[in-house]
Amino acid sequence: MSEQTAAAAVEGLDQVRYNQDGLVPAITQDRQTSRVVMMGWMTEATLRETLATGRMVYWSRSRQERWAKGDTSGAIQLVREAYYDCDGDVLLFVIDQQGKGACHTGEFSCFYRAFGAAE
Amino acid sequence: MSEQTAAAAVEGLDQVRYNQDGLVPAITQDRQTSRVVMMGWMTEATLRETLATGRMVYWSRSRQERWAKGDTSGAIQLVREAYYDCDGDVLLFVIDQQGKGACHTGEFSCFYRAFGAAE
Repeated sequence: MSEQTAAAAVEGLDQVRYNQDGLVPAITQDRQTSRVVMMGWMTEATLRETLATGRMVYWSRSRQERWAKGDTSGAIQLVREAYYDCDGDVLLFVIDQQGKGACHTGEFSCFYRAFGAAE
Repeated sequence: MSEQTAAAAVEGLDQVRYNQDGLVPAITQDRQTSRVVMMGWMTEATLRETLATGRMVYWSRSRQERWAKGDTSGAIQLVREAYYDCDGDVLLFVIDQQGKGACHTGEFSCFYRAFGAAE
């Protein structure tokens, strides 16, 4: 199969625009609680893998490597819905979160701290 | 008031990390529907303004200027909850969306297109 044919196999994939580092932000929302649990980054390859396998695979900017979420922690994210935005430069995945949660701190969501007025 | 005192006035503001362009991604989720409606970018100044005024103010990367969401469209976003993530490099705002929706296309959410298998 040519590269062009492979690209056409998933509708919308040719609409995605990557930044100068070849990355696109991926927002992850838990289906059951509707909570936004994290935002990671994807390359075209990890996006394709995510859509093909139904499991969230990010690109780790700190380690500069493919990051199959949950491989070590068990906090696998199963893809239920996958969207791209009007500009094609942000992705949204509705997922079923496995394990304790999405955050390496042990919290369910990475967004567990609210801004607040100091005393 | 010194800059240092001003910084301390909002708890968490000193935890935010900006990218090399001085920007941080801001995810916006509608409170009533729980839908993620958009992702924009903020400078420290527009983040401060957002927290101070209770209304979403982004930084437009295409126009390279402050963008008070809804000024021309009426699609104002009123801030109800404001979070920063575990790394301090992504923000999440739970908002009440005014007007027709968040997207310039007329859709309620910018994430109105799903990836799908082509025929």
